[in-house]
Amino acid sequence: MSPTPSALAFVPFVSVDNMMKIVHSIGLNEVLKEMVGYIEHDFRRWELFDKTPRVASHSKEGVIELMPTSDGEVYGFKYVNGHPKNMSEGFQTVTAFGVLARVDNGYPVLFSEMTILTALRTAATSAMAAKYLAPKGARTMAMIGNGAQCEFQALAFQAVLGIDTVQIYDIDPQATEKAARNLADSGLKVIKCSTPHEAIEGAEIITTCTADKQYATILTDNMVGPGVHINAIGGDCPGKTELHRDILLRSDIFVEYPEQTRIEGEIQQLADDHQVTELWEVVSGTAKGRSSEGQITLFDSVGFAIEDFSALRYVRDQLSRTGFFTELDMVADPDDPRDLHGMLRRAQ
Amino acid sequence: MSPTPSALAFVPFVSVDNMMKIVHSIGLNEVLKEMVGYIEHDFRRWELFDKTPRVASHSKEGVIELMPTSDGEVYGFKYVNGHPKNMSEGFQTVTAFGVLARVDNGYPVLFSEMTILTALRTAATSAMAAKYLAPKGARTMAMIGNGAQCEFQALAFQAVLGIDTVQIYDIDPQATEKAARNLADSGLKVIKCSTPHEAIEGAEIITTCTADKQYATILTDNMVGPGVHINAIGGDCPGKTELHRDILLRSDIFVEYPEQTRIEGEIQQLADDHQVTELWEVVSGTAKGRSSEGQITLFDSVGFAIEDFSALRYVRDQLSRTGFFTELDMVADPDDPRDLHGMLRRAQ
Repeated sequence: MSPTPSALAFVPFVSVDNMMKIVHSIGLNEVLKEMVGYIEHDFRRWELFDKTPRVASHSKEGVIELMPTSDGEVYGFKYVNGHPKNMSEGFQTVTAFGVLARVDNGYPVLFSEMTILTALRTAATSAMAAKYLAPKGARTMAMIGNGAQCEFQALAFQAVLGIDTVQIYDIDPQATEKAARNLADSGLKVIKCSTPHEAIEGAEIITTCTADKQYATILTDNMVGPGVHINAIGGDCPGKTELHRDILLRSDIFVEYPEQTRIEGEIQQLADDHQVTELWEVVSGTAKGRSSEGQITLFDSVGFAIEDFSALRYVRDQLSRTGFFTELDMVADPDDPRDLHGMLRRAQ
Repeated sequence: MSPTPSALAFVPFVSVDNMMKIVHSIGLNEVLKEMVGYIEHDFRRWELFDKTPRVASHSKEGVIELMPTSDGEVYGFKYVNGHPKNMSEGFQTVTAFGVLARVDNGYPVLFSEMTILTALRTAATSAMAAKYLAPKGARTMAMIGNGAQCEFQALAFQAVLGIDTVQIYDIDPQATEKAARNLADSGLKVIKCSTPHEAIEGAEIITTCTADKQYATILTDNMVGPGVHINAIGGDCPGKTELHRDILLRSDIFVEYPEQTRIEGEIQQLADDHQVTELWEVVSGTAKGRSSEGQITLFDSVGFAIEDFSALRYVRDQLSRTGFFTELDMVADPDDPRDLHGMLRRAQ
């Protein structure tokens, strides 16, 4: 039962490069499908998680957030920024990294890039929600907003729901061209649209994913017919929404964590007591998802710490499967834990 | 003015090994003195910082905390755990790491180990407070609790205040032996004591730094004479204190951030409106520090995010001075920031 201090001093690190290698060695479609399983598993045990709204530091240019959670055995958090103006200056709008640690002794056990991983988990979460909320047999999705998240959404809905057609639109035609190019060999039929109206024509699922940090109206009320599922992922902070309020009033609304969504989601436009359903209750079978053909379902998604936790758990489980990680000398680990100063002295 | 994406993808990382090299290349005493300067600078501009109590995840074994802050240009946070039982199992009680990032675009600019750095900044903060609070000409310090923090405290008080004698005591004589051994060539006169009473005999400064996660009474009221400065750093979470309540009632109490200290510090034993002075007001000259010879001053220190921020700033400024860092591929940085998927595809 002697501890092995030298091993404890090192924490597995998944760089951007290794994250890409993990994804390619398993296959992107397979990763998205497997990640849906991890997220679903954690939504089923939602009640045992330590939940807290994210800790946000707002500035005029954007926001930096810490998103912690714990299942009682493992603790995880993500650092993530959101800076809408970054794109025009050659930076990512969103970058992220995250950590898993042991609750029993506080030692980190995984440090990982999460810019790519957040894109994957956001797409996987959307697809998981749509399993319970989208109309049966949906084959066509509208994608409004063709930024960094667009292709991941399209591929996740293809892999998990069997979508075969995406109708894509962006205010910037170059973004649409980029997405069409990237999806060219995906097996999806990709239709480039020049108006939002054209994009939603005949679509059973409408995904909105735009990045303006302002109240915007990407969808107006008359654009949304009965029976569709709206996957609204772009509105995710105070003052940033995408849907006209009247759409919300006609929809059955599903959210991750109401305390957070009422501040950051589309429903910040509604009264604080407007009825919403928590997605975990649908996944665990205690609340209904889609219950009629004509119903408009809305997943008002802002992203929650438990999804990042699931994604980090997934990555942790791929370390030995793929071998794509390095080890970081992140934790000082003297032979005698009280002798930190002695360790420092001896290193001289 | 074109951005240089490839450089942005990499974040300077200071490992435990490189942190020790930075300290040794500059000299521990010099590092402690310089760090006092950084902390003092940030205490003087305290009001412009974004302050929030740390975000703690408590379990029966300990606590994991995130401590964020920002000065409007730079954002920083620390991950730190506190697990008192770790020591008996061969683990560090406290391990930590931290990050600095740009507020304007959210990109991380430094990732650093902070187990050693927290020990340094805690000692530097104690010494900085004592500059304003300890009796003039103090030469003898009692150190009760001879764990990982002990030697750093002694050396910081030597470097910054000119202490020449430390009287050390721990409930475990082996801890005292360890500290005496490490301080043997420090130039300090080290007196090993077998009772707390012996340790405080003649000391103008009393530092308490024990790690039990419980209400304890390391100092009773009759042990503390007039005119001393008490530097209480061991009590730092709810239910964990070191001083008898009657000592607090006789002392002028100085704290970092009252909202946090009332929950975590010695003053959790007092009424919520008990008068305390914020240390930053003393440092910036708007409140009095020590004002009479007979006064008992108490720095009820629990550690605050701004001190970590100062310490990370200090490390950042040593990167080019010492060259002791590596670069981590932490941030996905595609040529076109919207083309995250294309970057992933092209890596295949």
